[in-house]
This record gives sequence, C-alpha cells and structure tokens, in this order.
Amino acid sequence: MKYLDKLNFPDDLKKLKESELNLIAAEIREFLINSIAKTGGHLSSNLGVVELTVALHYCFNFSYDRIIWDVGHQSYTHKILTGRKNEFNSLRKKDGLSGFPKSEESIYDSFNTGHSSTSISAGLGIAQARNLSGGGYNVVSVIGDGSMTGGLVYEALNNAARSDGKFIIILNDNQMSISKNVGAMSKYLTELRSAPKYIEVKKDVSELLNSLPIFGSKMIKILEKTKDGIKYALLPSVMFEQLGVKYIGPVDGHDIGNLINVFNKVKKFDKPVLIHLLTTKGKGYKNAEKYPSKFHGIGSFDVTTGIPLSEKKGETYSEIFGKTMCKLSAKNKKIVAITAAMPSGTGLEFFSKAYPSRFFDVGIAESHAVTFSAGLAKGGFTPVFTVYSTFLQRGYDQIIHDVCIQKLHVVFAVDRAGIVGDDGETHQGIYDLSYLSHIPNMTVISPKNKFEFQKMLEFSINEFDAPIAIRYPKGTASEIFKEYFEEIKFGKSEYIFDGEDIIIIFVGNMADTAFKVYNMLIRAGFSPALVNARFIRPIDLELIQDIENRFEFVFTIEDNVETGGFGGGLNSELIKNGVFNKKIYNFAFPDVFVKQGSKTEIYKEFGLDSEKIFEKIICFIEKYKSLC
Amino acid sequence: MKYLDKLNFPDDLKKLKESELNLIAAEIREFLINSIAKTGGHLSSNLGVVELTVALHYCFNFSYDRIIWDVGHQSYTHKILTGRKNEFNSLRKKDGLSGFPKSEESIYDSFNTGHSSTSISAGLGIAQARNLSGGGYNVVSVIGDGSMTGGLVYEALNNAARSDGKFIIILNDNQMSISKNVGAMSKYLTELRSAPKYIEVKKDVSELLNSLPIFGSKMIKILEKTKDGIKYALLPSVMFEQLGVKYIGPVDGHDIGNLINVFNKVKKFDKPVLIHLLTTKGKGYKNAEKYPSKFHGIGSFDVTTGIPLSEKKGETYSEIFGKTMCKLSAKNKKIVAITAAMPSGTGLEFFSKAYPSRFFDVGIAESHAVTFSAGLAKGGFTPVFTVYSTFLQRGYDQIIHDVCIQKLHVVFAVDRAGIVGDDGETHQGIYDLSYLSHIPNMTVISPKNKFEFQKMLEFSINEFDAPIAIRYPKGTASEIFKEYFEEIKFGKSEYIFDGEDIIIIFVGNMADTAFKVYNMLIRAGFSPALVNARFIRPIDLELIQDIENRFEFVFTIEDNVETGGFGGGLNSELIKNGVFNKKIYNFAFPDVFVKQGSKTEIYKEFGLDSEKIFEKIICFIEKYKSLC
Repeated sequence: MKYLDKLNFPDDLKKLKESELNLIAAEIREFLINSIAKTGGHLSSNLGVVELTVALHYCFNFSYDRIIWDVGHQSYTHKILTGRKNEFNSLRKKDGLSGFPKSEESIYDSFNTGHSSTSISAGLGIAQARNLSGGGYNVVSVIGDGSMTGGLVYEALNNAARSDGKFIIILNDNQMSISKNVGAMSKYLTELRSAPKYIEVKKDVSELLNSLPIFGSKMIKILEKTKDGIKYALLPSVMFEQLGVKYIGPVDGHDIGNLINVFNKVKKFDKPVLIHLLTTKGKGYKNAEKYPSKFHGIGSFDVTTGIPLSEKKGETYSEIFGKTMCKLSAKNKKIVAITAAMPSGTGLEFFSKAYPSRFFDVGIAESHAVTFSAGLAKGGFTPVFTVYSTFLQRGYDQIIHDVCIQKLHVVFAVDRAGIVGDDGETHQGIYDLSYLSHIPNMTVISPKNKFEFQKMLEFSINEFDAPIAIRYPKGTASEIFKEYFEEIKFGKSEYIFDGEDIIIIFVGNMADTAFKVYNMLIRAGFSPALVNARFIRPIDLELIQDIENRFEFVFTIEDNVETGGFGGGLNSELIKNGVFNKKIYNFAFPDVFVKQGSKTEIYKEFGLDSEKIFEKIICFIEKYKSLC
Repeated sequence: MKYLDKLNFPDDLKKLKESELNLIAAEIREFLINSIAKTGGHLSSNLGVVELTVALHYCFNFSYDRIIWDVGHQSYTHKILTGRKNEFNSLRKKDGLSGFPKSEESIYDSFNTGHSSTSISAGLGIAQARNLSGGGYNVVSVIGDGSMTGGLVYEALNNAARSDGKFIIILNDNQMSISKNVGAMSKYLTELRSAPKYIEVKKDVSELLNSLPIFGSKMIKILEKTKDGIKYALLPSVMFEQLGVKYIGPVDGHDIGNLINVFNKVKKFDKPVLIHLLTTKGKGYKNAEKYPSKFHGIGSFDVTTGIPLSEKKGETYSEIFGKTMCKLSAKNKKIVAITAAMPSGTGLEFFSKAYPSRFFDVGIAESHAVTFSAGLAKGGFTPVFTVYSTFLQRGYDQIIHDVCIQKLHVVFAVDRAGIVGDDGETHQGIYDLSYLSHIPNMTVISPKNKFEFQKMLEFSINEFDAPIAIRYPKGTASEIFKEYFEEIKFGKSEYIFDGEDIIIIFVGNMADTAFKVYNMLIRAGFSPALVNARFIRPIDLELIQDIENRFEFVFTIEDNVETGGFGGGLNSELIKNGVFNKKIYNFAFPDVFVKQGSKTEIYKEFGLDSEKIFEKIICFIEKYKSLC
C-alpha cells in the first residue's frame, strides 16, 4: 500500500500533508478489514476510529503526550501507527500482539485497559501527576458512549471538573456500545447529536436579543443573565458544563481536517475539556456498518460476504442459559433477568423479546445491576443477573452489602468463568471462586456439562432461596458424562466413579480434563475415584468424611487461581475437621495474571492439561507412597 | 414528653393535627440529643432530618409504602416513629437497636443499608418489582448530597430516568457528607441551593417575553422554543431533568407544612421525581450545628457543653498514619495522599493542610480513587490511598484491573480492618485479607503495634515498588512488644519468642490476644513459639520450612473470615510444600456476618478471646498428642 508500507511510527505520519491523511485512513481501513478477517478481533469499533486516531497522532506526540483508550479494543489503528503494524498476524494470539493497549508492548500505550469506563479516572491521575511534576504533556482519554453509563466515569468527571490543568476527554459517540445503548445518558447524547440545529437557533436568538428595545436597567441585567442562560439552554451541553467540564461538539469524527482543527485548539486549554465526536461503528465496511454487534468481536471471516469462516461447534453455555431462562420463565412468572449491556453475549436476546417487561438492561453498570437485583428480590421477584466473571468483580461490595447480608435470593449466572483466551489478562474469569467463596450466605456451584447446567439453573431459581452463583465457561458446552446424573442437592458433590486410595475432585469446566486424567490413571493401574464438586461453597462435608475414611491421595482440579479457590477451601475444610495427614495436591492457576492464548495453550503453559496433570499425579504418588 | 410519650407508631402520628407536628419534632429532637448523649451514635445527620421524617410518616404509610434510607445512619427518627423508641438505650450495643435500618428489626425498614449511594438502585429495583406485580405502593429513597458523588447513584439515575412508574428520590442536601463535600456535584448543588433568586428572575423574564413586540413568525417559533430553554437555564435543575428525572426544589427541609404539600403532590406522579431538600446538619443543637463533623458519629457526651464523656485512650492508628505520612512526605516529594471523603476519619486532616497540592479528596468514590491512584503512579508519584477496609470493597475490580495487572506502586492504607464494633455487619473489616490475598502482584501486610506500623508505612512507600496493602484496626494503637523489633524484609515473618512443638502465628491486631494466650500456655507448662506473620501475602517460606522441621502443632490467629484469610493461605502453602501431617487449628471469624457489639463482646462470642483460644488449644493438643 502506497502510504502504509512506508509508515511505521507517528513521525512518518507527521511528514504527510494534511490532504494525504484521508488516503492513509483508507489504507488503514483496508488493512484492518483484511487483517481481522484472518485473525479475528474487534472490527466495528476499530473501523469507527480510524480518522480519529490518525488525527490524534498527527496533532499530538504520544511518546511525550499520554493517551488512554477506554476499554482499549479500539486501539488497533493506534497500534498500526506506533510500530506494530507487522505484528497484526499474531493479534490476540499467544505471545502475539495484544488486542488491548499494553504499556509493556509499547511506550505509546500510556495505560493498560480492558474493562470499561476507567480512562477518565486514570487520565485524571496522570494529569494531576503532570501538574505536580511541572510537566507540560497533554493527557487524552478516548471513551465510547457505551462506557459513559459506568459510574466510574461520573466519579471521575465529578473529580476532574474541579481539577486544574489541561485534560482532554474525547467522547467517541457511535450511539452504541457493544449492543444498543440504554438509559438516560444515551438518550441525552442522542439529543446532543442533533445540536447543530440549536446552534442555528442560537444565532437567531442572539440577533433577536441584540435588537431588543431597552426596557430599563433591571431588564438589561436580567437579559445579561439570560443570554448565558439561553446559550446553555439551546446548546444542550449543559450537563457536562454544569459539572464543570468544557464541552465542544458535536464534531464529525470522520472529518480529519476538522478533527485536526479542534485538537490544535483544545491543546491550548488549561482546563478539562470534553470533545463530543460522532462516528459510525464499522465505518467503511458495509457488512460491519449494517451489523456492528456481529462484527464487534469476531473470528476470522470472508471479507466479501462477511460470513465467519470457522464453523459453529455446538451450543454454547450462553445459548443454553438463554433457552433455559425462557423455558423456566414460562412457568415461573417471578423470574426477571438483568444484564449489564450484554444481552447478546450472555444469551438473553431471545428472553428480552419474549419477556420484555421482565428484562432489564441497565447499561455498563455492574455495581448498580447487583443492588438493583437486590431491590427486585426484596420486591418479591427472582432476579437472575447474567454477567461475565471478570465484570462481576465490579459488584463485589454490592454482593456482600446489598445481597448477602440480607440473604436475598439473587441468582448470579457467572458466564465466561475460567480462561477466556484471546482477550488476555484483563478478561480472564479466574478470580470468581476466590471473591465469591468467602462471602457469608453465598452459595457457589459449577456444572460439569450442559445438562447439569440446566438443572443447576432450575435448582438455583426454583428450589433455592438465598444468594447463589453458577459459574460456567466461555464457549461450547460440554456433553461429557451425559449418562451420569444425580439430582442436585444442596451442598452435595457427585461421584462419577468410585475408587480407592486416590480421589480426584474437579470443578465444573475441568470435567473433560479430569476424565482424561482418570482414564490415564486407570490405564496405569490405579483405581482413583472421580468426583464432581458441584458445590464449591459450601464444601460437601460427607465428601470430607469420605476422604478421611477412604482416601490417601487427594487431587483437586479447577480453573481458578489457587488462593481462595476450591482446592484451598477443601484443604482448610479438611483441617477444620481434623483430617490432617492426607497427601494433597491442588491443580489451579498460580496467583499470576494469565496472558492471552488459546485455552489449550494456556492450560498447557500452567500444567493444567491432562498430560501434565497425569505426570504430576504419578510423580506425586511415587514420592509419597513410602510414607503411606 | 407531652406528645412523644403517647407516640409509638406512625398511626399515632397521623392522629395529630398538622399544627402539632412542629411540637412533636421538637420533642424528638430533645429525645435524640439526650439519648445519643448517653449511648453515642450519629447525631448531626439525625437532627437534620427530624422534620423530613415526621412529614414522610405523616404523608406515607411505610408498612405498605417502602422507604430506603441511603447509608442509613440518619434513620433514628424513623425508628422512634416506628415502635422502637424504647430501645434507644441499647442503640448500637450488642443485641440492641441497630444504628442502621434493618429489615429483621422492623417491617418499616424496607431495605438494609450502611454503605453510601445504594438507595436509588435498591429503590428502583423495588419500584420495578411493584410495577410487575401490579402493586400501588410508593417507593421513597432518601439520599444525602454526600452520597451523590458515588458512581452507583449515577448508574441508578441513568437507569431510573427511563423507567416507568412512580419513584420518589429525596435529595437531603445539607452541603456536606461526613466532611466537607468536594467535586463538581457539590458545586452544582450549591448553585441549586440559590435557585430561589432565579425563580424570581424567571418570573420577570416571562413577563418580558410576553410583552415583547412581534418580530414575525420565525421569531415567534424561536421564542416558543426559547421559553422552555430559559426555564431550564434559569432553574439549574437541568442536569437531573436532562437525565430524565423530574426535579422539584429547592425545598426547605425543616418546614413541615411545605414538606407535606410537596409529598402529597408528588404521590400523584407516575414517573421518577427528585425532591431537593435543604436541611441543616445538627439542626436545633448548637454544638452540632457548629461542629457537624465532630457530632457526625460520637460517643457519649455532655449535653450542655457538647464535650465527650469518655477520655481519649491514646493515639489511634489513624492518627499515627496521618503523622507518619507528614513525616515521610517532608523528605519524599513523590508521596501523594488520596481519600474518598474521609480526610478526618483516616487521619489525613493535617496532611491536607501541610501538603494541599499533594492531597486528593475524591468524594465518596472508592472505585475512582483506586484507578485515579493508578494514574498518579503511572505519572511517577507514590499514591497512598487511605480507606476503610469495608469501603475498599468497592475498589476490588480496580485493584485487579488498574493497579495490579500493571504492578503499579500504589499503597493501600486499609484502616478499620477487623472488627469495627458498633456499626455492625455492614461495616466490619473482616474480608480484606480474603479479597486482597488472591490478587496477583498484591502484597498484604499488617503491623503488631504502632511502631511497626510506622516502619511498615515507610517500607511500603520508600522501599517497595509494587501494589501493597497495610491493614490496621480501628481505635487505639497497640504498644505491645515495643522492645521487639526486627527490620521489615519482604515476605519475612518475625519470631517474637521461639519455642518447641507448638507455634502460634498471629496477624497484626491479634498480637495482644496472642500474647495473652502465649503466657497462659507458658504457665501451663508448654513452650510455644510466638510469631508475628507480618506478611499475609506472600507467606513466609522460611516459616513453612521451620514448621516442617520443628513444630507439630500450628495455630493461626486472625481477625478476618476463615475462608481466604491468613490461616487458609498458610494451610495451602504447607500443603503446596509437601508439609502434610501437622496438627493445625485456624482461629478466625467463621463465614458469617458479624453483628454490632463491642470488640470484646464480639471476640468472646466467636471464641476469639484469649481464654477461649487457650482452652481450645489445650483441648486440641490433648486430643492429638497421642497421635504425634
């Protein structure tokens, strides 16, 4: 490509004429489409910010200035322009280019992101540090309109508005986050989008006011006040301005020349300013413009048709969740479903159409979703809050304070628990067992397969009456142990196979791996028992007794960090019950952040694949046999 | 008292004439002052809402309608009016009246509160449940202006504004939360407070507009639009109204007649409405009006002078924190301090005056405080975020996502860790070890006494370069083991006394209890070792080796829930290192919510006082001795 081939760093961009920037934007767009078609990744959001990113790098110097990309999956063009173009074939792959900004990847990435709504808080912190150290660099936070529903943004704006020093917030408004936006802020931004017509009105009113006859000095004073008032009234930017942040907009986010003008102007401000940009998600690729949600995060696809290349492998847990919710809700009129801006990802799309009045999309607002659910439960309903494991982290206090203290019957459907793969360390769901298990009154369960998952949902909703979390993984739902099914009983685990001396207890998603290990052990002449934990909290006390009476070697397998997870809980429960001398090994992730990669690669890296687990078990038994 | 003696339930109140309500308010105020002077409690906030509460109970029927008190420490008058007047001598005492709303205490308490900013989320949930079930009750959330800085409020308003059905939000604006309010919302509310003068202007402008000569039809249309615009411009209620919530105010919150009018009017609305009340914190008690912060939460005091009756017992950890911060900051210019609306409670008041540019009060906004701190760290400073253990729960996701993934040097000074006593289950700091210990890259330490605390702060700030949390308790700082002092080394515990066979490892605050137990064991003829854990995470591996080689009985003592705490971590670390056959007992709180009471009472209740621990240890050793 004429321009892109020669372009590696922002300095190369700065050598171009302003008139050439649209040409480079077009090439970047082509590069993005073709590259993501091969690797998969976030397409729509990146196509929407090509011109914005080009203009930013043309006007600023981000080896000195700082940029924070909210969420961060829209940073591909930024990566292309900062020396990482040639790594795009490794995008979101193990040891490859991250799909999010990463300081360790480039000095141009000022702050790591992944979760929503953090950029203003982080940017303000950096701006204050700059003020204190007397530096002169600009700080730019780029945030999408979807992220504006997060309370963190408001906490940050409240703080920013009364802070000194320059700080540029770019509100990238494409009228949607991942799905259609909800709530008052979204409505408000829609009003702002149509502001140009108000500007015209304003001009007329100014003329009118200037041409008014004089009614006396009192009236003049009133009119003086009124003029400012009218300005605010007709330019509905007031909310941001009343919060003390200067508002500029709306600005066409695809007009590079205009963007450059605006950026060069705001650079001179010495106060926080919010620039409201209008962009189109999926811009320039008709399939993505038409179906931006479908192309939000996508696998490899055919560029011409937009059709995904990889075949679907079977029902996902999310799909089964959605179907089961519909089925249960037909009979149980008390069921209500809550999502935090993820109706599609969590499988609730069909439910939202079948039961619109019982469906609540609260926007990207997990903390509120939890307390709101507590309110619904208090009001006599059975709320099911469906949320990714990593995002429920934002509701930790509310789970304790608003749900569990009052022992309210809120069901947490914790999707994407365990390894999520290509999104990397900001999105892994490997802490939920640790952050949920120690909360009083909380029950935590996990299914071995799709059938048990449905039964667990039914149990949690119809047969239970206290806070409960079901955690299940991303992707195709397992059908393993289809033939093994015992009724779900509170606090009871399930023997898949009985055995002697050795017991292997697995948590939900690790069933397949555990079964492989089991078979390898059988082939090696051992007779292990294989147990499905089912209840991570409380731990099955009969199982503890069984271990005391019948087993010498205890192995736990889970896809959570080791501290505070199932294995740790079992260790302490054994000790609490005076069972001291068992030989125990806990298979779990160490307490480290797990980077991107395929599930298979990651399990292997951390010794959680069946081969490594088998080897470790054999070695462990060998080591301690003599002691038995 | 003439009225109060005969008044027990809201029905008694409803029998009174409107003209008598000011008399009952005066009696309630007298009752509150005299009662809290004896028991201690939250005085200022309760004196501010006497008229509001009387008017609410006069207009609504809260055995049918629902009321949610944000934070909830202003619910005393509500308790007086709903059958709990005679229990005020037990306020905040063990098995006594709670200082917060509690459903289990009264049907008039619709939702338990304690932490800030939850009431709109919870109220909205209840209102939606009412809509779905076809009920007709009112839902009233009462929230202070201080709580308005919390992001949860904004997430809830964003959601509420586009919801159907009546929902009344009462913004109780006393121009402060616990300390002076900060941020844009506070400034904005201050503008609203002065709105009456705008109303007058508005009237004049309306007249002006009506008297204008006609400039042609285009101008008329503009003026039609402009009139509405002017209304919003001059009544700066726009922010709430632009978010879609009807705004009424400002209303004098001490004028019962006016309040009754407003409440009877808004009852008829079928949309969310926000009533902006102006009240005076400490109203009617001159000492409290003058020093509302001092009388926010107070022990028993002399009514005439306002002087606390109990003598101060020595320096608190918070005070030492403040002094040490000042001392360290004089030399280390990189230190910055962050608080979430608790400059006084956390001991930062002096720092805030000595280093105003390096001090950041972000309002009640713990999530933002964490990410903002991450930004400051990225900008080259050493942020120390001082926060109560229970409130840091709100920053859990941000600690993982914004601080620990990037391994940023943010110091968390976790105050009020362990049992806080009279505030009860919503405020106990007994989860922090569990929610912090499993986070990768996080270090967690706790000091045995005030001297070690200072050294730990110095270590964390000047000698460390990664996320670290120091947890310390509420109240007077211990001076125990003054003479035992080893230098702080990363990951190393400290032997206070060596011994044989038996090892007792305690966490920070449990030093005094552990020492008593130690002495009792010595007197009973045992020779235990006594170890100060210092590092809860990572666990001292040399200690693990020592246990393996030299000790048979292992006892851990901590003031955290048992799951995911220090003892659990030690159990798993022993197992991980192949140390299987030790006799271990972990002293910790069970996984239950711990209700109010004095520290002494609570430790006793849960078997964590020295006598019970000693007995348990003796019994435990007796039981397992034969096995050794």
